[in-house]
Amino acid sequence: MTPRATNADSSAAKLVELRDAVRDADVKAVRDIVTSSGFFAPHEIDVAGELVVERLARGAASGYHFIFADADSQPIGYACYGPIGCTVGSFDLYWIAVQAEIRGQGVGRRLLQEVERRVALVGGRRVYIETSSRPLYEPTRHFYERCGYHAEAHLEDFYSLGDAKVVFVKPLDAARLHR
Amino acid sequence: MTPRATNADSSAAKLVELRDAVRDADVKAVRDIVTSSGFFAPHEIDVAGELVVERLARGAASGYHFIFADADSQPIGYACYGPIGCTVGSFDLYWIAVQAEIRGQGVGRRLLQEVERRVALVGGRRVYIETSSRPLYEPTRHFYERCGYHAEAHLEDFYSLGDAKVVFVKPLDAARLHR
Repeated sequence: MTPRATNADSSAAKLVELRDAVRDADVKAVRDIVTSSGFFAPHEIDVAGELVVERLARGAASGYHFIFADADSQPIGYACYGPIGCTVGSFDLYWIAVQAEIRGQGVGRRLLQEVERRVALVGGRRVYIETSSRPLYEPTRHFYERCGYHAEAHLEDFYSLGDAKVVFVKPLDAARLHR
Repeated sequence: MTPRATNADSSAAKLVELRDAVRDADVKAVRDIVTSSGFFAPHEIDVAGELVVERLARGAASGYHFIFADADSQPIGYACYGPIGCTVGSFDLYWIAVQAEIRGQGVGRRLLQEVERRVALVGGRRVYIETSSRPLYEPTRHFYERCGYHAEAHLEDFYSLGDAKVVFVKPLDAARLHR
């Protein structure tokens, strides 16, 4: 069985419930999920939590939309995305993270597919994901590729010397995703 | 004489005074400059003005830094730039615009050089500029290339179908720019 099939069949991915309503408790939940993932620095964890605060304060006008994956009503993963200003139909996936213990069971893939479905529903054409070229993020980059994204740009030394920004994109096939 | 030499020698570029302090009157001045340039849509003109408002309200903490080119104490061009979050030493040039009547006289080049000088002074390594692939922006792209920028990325259909985002970058030679 390929990892892809394993993911698609995993019980964790099937059992989680997806929701888009954001609650006060999600500020802490997001910080916990992002921290547990081990991929983010302290200031990035702060940013992740602040986006939830911003969303709670300003609603959809914040430009930040969330999908939470709940198991037993507790968030174990989430994605945050939004429209890119001054574009027609381009969206950014700002964050996607799954609790470390649940990783590899298809929850991230389900979150990403839900983001794409919702972006397509509002007429979105493309989803962009920016990530680092560092070896730490190799599993992340492979995950995006398995989900149908391709690296369209590579900005040398963007994050810091030797740490490039890789821009992934997936053009959405609206007809397929609307189903 | 090449256009480059013409620009460098122009009296307009020499006579303008550069300043970084932002005044209330600059909100209108920026909107007028951006409007006169003919390169921006109404919602983009709003964004340009809002960044000045944001800077006036929050100061340097806004993340928006301005250089104005004044002739007879009136702004005839400006640049807006700032550090890119979660990077070490990468900066974005958000806006650069010069009143239509003054274009081609080296004011834009002087503004851009001043941005680079200030970015290098605070340890910045790279300046990024994002622009559109549309024919309207061909003079803009050539201007960036003449100023030492190169197109590092090309994101198809980013702004809209057929309208790509081109990302220009200039690695700063700190030793040279500090002089």
